Amino acid sequence: MSSGDRGLNVGVLTGGGDCPGLNAAIRAIVVKGERRYGDEVVGFLDGWRGLLEDSTMALASATSSELVTVGGTILGTSRTNPFSVDRGMDRISQTVSSHSLDALIAIGGEDTLGVAARLWEEGGIPIVGVPKTIDNDLSGTEMTFGFDTAVQIATEAIDRLRTTAESHHRVIVCEVMGRNAGWIATYAGIAGGAAEILVPEEPFEIDEVCDRLRKRHNGGKFSSVVVIAEGASARSDSPGLALGGSQGGTPAGGMDEFGHIRLGGIGSLLAEEIERRTGFESRVTILGHIQRGGTPTAYDRVLATRYGVAAIDSVHTGAFGTMVALQAGKIVRVSLAEASGNAKTVDPELLHDVAEVFLG
Amino acid sequence: MSSGDRGLNVGVLTGGGDCPGLNAAIRAIVVKGERRYGDEVVGFLDGWRGLLEDSTMALASATSSELVTVGGTILGTSRTNPFSVDRGMDRISQTVSSHSLDALIAIGGEDTLGVAARLWEEGGIPIVGVPKTIDNDLSGTEMTFGFDTAVQIATEAIDRLRTTAESHHRVIVCEVMGRNAGWIATYAGIAGGAAEILVPEEPFEIDEVCDRLRKRHNGGKFSSVVVIAEGASARSDSPGLALGGSQGGTPAGGMDEFGHIRLGGIGSLLAEEIERRTGFESRVTILGHIQRGGTPTAYDRVLATRYGVAAIDSVHTGAFGTMVALQAGKIVRVSLAEASGNAKTVDPELLHDVAEVFLG
Amino acid sequence: MSSGDRGLNVGVLTGGGDCPGLNAAIRAIVVKGERRYGDEVVGFLDGWRGLLEDSTMALASATSSELVTVGGTILGTSRTNPFSVDRGMDRISQTVSSHSLDALIAIGGEDTLGVAARLWEEGGIPIVGVPKTIDNDLSGTEMTFGFDTAVQIATEAIDRLRTTAESHHRVIVCEVMGRNAGWIATYAGIAGGAAEILVPEEPFEIDEVCDRLRKRHNGGKFSSVVVIAEGASARSDSPGLALGGSQGGTPAGGMDEFGHIRLGGIGSLLAEEIERRTGFESRVTILGHIQRGGTPTAYDRVLATRYGVAAIDSVHTGAFGTMVALQAGKIVRVSLAEASGNAKTVDPELLHDVAEVFLG
Amino acid sequence: MSSGDRGLNVGVLTGGGDCPGLNAAIRAIVVKGERRYGDEVVGFLDGWRGLLEDSTMALASATSSELVTVGGTILGTSRTNPFSVDRGMDRISQTVSSHSLDALIAIGGEDTLGVAARLWEEGGIPIVGVPKTIDNDLSGTEMTFGFDTAVQIATEAIDRLRTTAESHHRVIVCEVMGRNAGWIATYAGIAGGAAEILVPEEPFEIDEVCDRLRKRHNGGKFSSVVVIAEGASARSDSPGLALGGSQGGTPAGGMDEFGHIRLGGIGSLLAEEIERRTGFESRVTILGHIQRGGTPTAYDRVLATRYGVAAIDSVHTGAFGTMVALQAGKIVRVSLAEASGNAKTVDPELLHDVAEVFLG
Repeated sequence: MSSGDRGLNVGVLTGGGDCPGLNAAIRAIVVKGERRYGDEVVGFLDGWRGLLEDSTMALASATSSELVTVGGTILGTSRTNPFSVDRGMDRISQTVSSHSLDALIAIGGEDTLGVAARLWEEGGIPIVGVPKTIDNDLSGTEMTFGFDTAVQIATEAIDRLRTTAESHHRVIVCEVMGRNAGWIATYAGIAGGAAEILVPEEPFEIDEVCDRLRKRHNGGKFSSVVVIAEGASARSDSPGLALGGSQGGTPAGGMDEFGHIRLGGIGSLLAEEIERRTGFESRVTILGHIQRGGTPTAYDRVLATRYGVAAIDSVHTGAFGTMVALQAGKIVRVSLAEASGNAKTVDPELLHDVAEVFLG
Repeated sequence: MSSGDRGLNVGVLTGGGDCPGLNAAIRAIVVKGERRYGDEVVGFLDGWRGLLEDSTMALASATSSELVTVGGTILGTSRTNPFSVDRGMDRISQTVSSHSLDALIAIGGEDTLGVAARLWEEGGIPIVGVPKTIDNDLSGTEMTFGFDTAVQIATEAIDRLRTTAESHHRVIVCEVMGRNAGWIATYAGIAGGAAEILVPEEPFEIDEVCDRLRKRHNGGKFSSVVVIAEGASARSDSPGLALGGSQGGTPAGGMDEFGHIRLGGIGSLLAEEIERRTGFESRVTILGHIQRGGTPTAYDRVLATRYGVAAIDSVHTGAFGTMVALQAGKIVRVSLAEASGNAKTVDPELLHDVAEVFLG
Repeated sequence: MSSGDRGLNVGVLTGGGDCPGLNAAIRAIVVKGERRYGDEVVGFLDGWRGLLEDSTMALASATSSELVTVGGTILGTSRTNPFSVDRGMDRISQTVSSHSLDALIAIGGEDTLGVAARLWEEGGIPIVGVPKTIDNDLSGTEMTFGFDTAVQIATEAIDRLRTTAESHHRVIVCEVMGRNAGWIATYAGIAGGAAEILVPEEPFEIDEVCDRLRKRHNGGKFSSVVVIAEGASARSDSPGLALGGSQGGTPAGGMDEFGHIRLGGIGSLLAEEIERRTGFESRVTILGHIQRGGTPTAYDRVLATRYGVAAIDSVHTGAFGTMVALQAGKIVRVSLAEASGNAKTVDPELLHDVAEVFLG
Repeated sequence: MSSGDRGLNVGVLTGGGDCPGLNAAIRAIVVKGERRYGDEVVGFLDGWRGLLEDSTMALASATSSELVTVGGTILGTSRTNPFSVDRGMDRISQTVSSHSLDALIAIGGEDTLGVAARLWEEGGIPIVGVPKTIDNDLSGTEMTFGFDTAVQIATEAIDRLRTTAESHHRVIVCEVMGRNAGWIATYAGIAGGAAEILVPEEPFEIDEVCDRLRKRHNGGKFSSVVVIAEGASARSDSPGLALGGSQGGTPAGGMDEFGHIRLGGIGSLLAEEIERRTGFESRVTILGHIQRGGTPTAYDRVLATRYGVAAIDSVHTGAFGTMVALQAGKIVRVSLAEASGNAKTVDPELLHDVAEVFLG
């Protein structure tokens, strides 16, 4: 059952948005593959594009211990989807053949793993998945690496914003990442002691937000930090206001590929509305890309390393079509189909029994 | 079943070594208790001593959101054990009575929770436990708060030590906390890309350590960071060397109450032995108390907050004699007896299938 | 000459934008004033408004050593200008009299110190100034506190942005504070290894920026971090583009009191233009208020402490109408008039002989 | 006067203890040398040893912007002194000749620059010096790079130690680097709000230290952080105690090459004495090598970059026998002889007029 007795040819790629921990996962795959199994590991550049175009890099340097500290991915990444490309699956099969690959390890989020699932199911390409997303919204696993780092960065930002909000008696809106799920907002909001936490899972009512801020103000707290996920939206019946999100139709202010339009998004609209309705001086800070770059936290380095180790182990036990996952502190395997299914939204218990208690 | 219909009188204390997240847990208890349940929460000072001597503090200030960022415990702490004190249990019962306490929440590690278990079992005092230890060696829970912060601090230290080790072509031994379990050493060692990870769970052979370092050196890596838990020890048959630990008899160099004798402990001996045997210039850094103080990571703030919330919930469902715990991402309850039983040592899988792969 | 033989009544206020180190300065004034001179120090709330409205706070708590770690100002701040208020100077004089103040210490930037200069010159109010601004653009002093912290935060952000830029082969524009001077952009750009540094002092030519980025790209560097000060602007003859700034007429995108319009400012326009002209995928991150909040760096704590000490010393030597300043490593005194004069712009040598060398 | 019209052959080395910023300085020399002057820059490995043994490395990679974030030195370092080696100067001259070097840039502290001064004066070797030391005790310059990072790390440690000291009502002694001068102790002590700051410049009286701690304790502050430089010592007439240092004769506890003996040094002795004399529970933490490794602060990156740029400029103006230095915010040149003369000890004004005010 195990192919451990001979070295294998293994390809590895990283797809989708970059996130802290990718390099730790790559290193783990290479080190365990080469040292323990005698494998030959080759890196494909820029996600699926590397397989479509057969662009590769050698991974000898990936064994260095410094690599665990480096953010991003040495393999590069892209959002290229082979199923949107002419003869995509054929071209990938051809690359797999020409490199005599025994297996492919795809590190990515919902999109990347969805492609991986189809390549395995439809094309029989022997693939193992590794989950990553700073949003933590992947099903089948308790935690994805990148999330802890994003939460830590957002929390440190909230810590900083709190003191300036206090000095100026302001409301400061802090927009964090999370288009479909509010994990970062919920965790960073709890960790940072936010006055409001607004998430995509539960459209908010602007009047209720303002009422709570007024009540807080009347209680002697003249400053507030409001954490909002970029994908949060106001309820459609919010009188006199259409605060969109990425879920409910057109996003607020439109959204284009430059990012600067998103900067006129939900956080900015919210700050403006709060000031208009309450008269409290309000500001907005949109954390943006600093949430996804740079040195990973120790937690993410360890999780990514464990995932990388388990992925190369999966290759050697022939567990194709599966993704490594964290459940109850253990690394397990779940099917790629399960993983790339419905997004994992924030536990309502965490929102209502925990986060809500501290609001206002 | 629920006592939610009326406010209760609840006492809270923190015992044992301090750790990051204690204040977040205290805040959660106070905020949810007072806002949701109409409770009156009183703080007892310096662990069990506060109950023995009836020294208390009001906790109104504990509701402030800044408190989540503050390390240590506003209640103070001590290692006072009421069962080592004349009429200890009686005096505690008396304090409980005189304050008309409906419940007591004890936040602590093995010792504090062991006392809590006996007070409930032998004295019928209605107690709920909250687990904390930077060592993460408590049974019944996947994670204790304080651990993530300690690992993060140790990892940042290793990141720093790596560059100075490289510049000087040195071996640097980094001694981290962990008397009975090597969780911090294992996590920080993996996260920091250590060349060696030595833990109390598996006594090491000094010759093997030196052999691996020599091999590493011969392979062109002229510097190494060796992470060792303070409680690690050399195998008794280690020729020509008795490197103790806190487990195997007399600790190396003796250990007294000033901490400075421990500074002549296992890490220093190890560095000296490595230099003597290999000829590689070696240094030691003992991280000490910086691992337990200061601002908690976001992870620890969230975990401590969830524990605090669950503890006051436990009080209101009358779940006395239990401790809140993390299992599979959910907060659950386990019996205090289970929690204060055998120490949870490092998962052998993590040591052998993960950490070992990267050594050398 | 010295009034050290008896304690004085001293008022202190903080005005303008908050910045890291204000609390360290307040603490230094209180501790040295009360302990060394037997002074009574009273705090006025929210800048000049506190003197206009006689709203004060006792400063006993200001002696705590923890205060050095806390961002913002415990006194609150505002941009209230007494000379824009009916009978402003009279009302301030009256407050000074009613508290029998022997002196007033005003901690602030250009505006606050400009007011202080007039109150001394025109009203004879005995004032000593302490310079603060994260922008470092005050004349008469080599360094203002708050600047080092802002640069450190911006540099850490650039470190993070660099890895995500590399992974995605993107240009990332990072907009930092600095309306009239590009100190933060220059320092953080040098420290972060930026590909471009754009400052208000020297309007840029968009074509030249794009040419350098293309050249860099052709040289094999497919990602770039571009640092731009919020007050930077394109040259008026920049063909086909009017990239404003806060100096050259109408700011890009307009600017209102919510901050969110500024978020559509120069950084966003620049990212859009770069992508449009070069075809390189571009993004923007606007650091905003996180640059001014939170725990100060050690450097800023020490500088603020030295300033606070020197300010209370100035009070006791009767050096009214002066501001404390840093020159050649020593704390000296300069006239308030000098300090609140022309803004100190970035040393051209630093821009041309240092920063420029690393661009592209 | 300028040799800018043709490229030169320039050698660069780093000597003495490593420190944050060395790589930024190396990068600046290479980038400005190669891009602006058309120089060829070669790196010599491990300080003067590289010149003695003609061991070099190419510096193409040194132009990467990531290098500014990396601690230590890619050139390696050592304490090798060519004047303690047979025919040292001759061998260096020979290496200089064989590489047709037009100039040598030596980055180092007192020892390295002292050697540089002699090589220039006695051997006519065209050398330019760049000052670095985390101790900041070099004459001729206001600041050396590495110092700001060391202070920041020590301050963050003190911030952490303060909360654990408070929770346990302890005295915590924090031993920081500084054998001959107490700059780190003074700056970090002020920045961290220490209760005591003990430096080599002024031997302390143990009874006075204990008296102040008792007085502080009686005033209601039951915890204290005491910062002590490794080179501090007790006054010889300190009754019943001989607390040595590196200045006054035999260092406490002896000092050997493993570092572990130094761990039984002044900090540990002090904690023990404080506990013995006052009865206050005391602990010690010795920060050690984490003070010199890892990512430099933004301040140090900028200073090191400016020094590197100025050094290669000095080469091209033929300013041999000089060292670049910081004076009044400007980079200037001083003679190597001046720089390697008497150590720069802490400004008494800073100790007495500032630091002392906050003690107790």
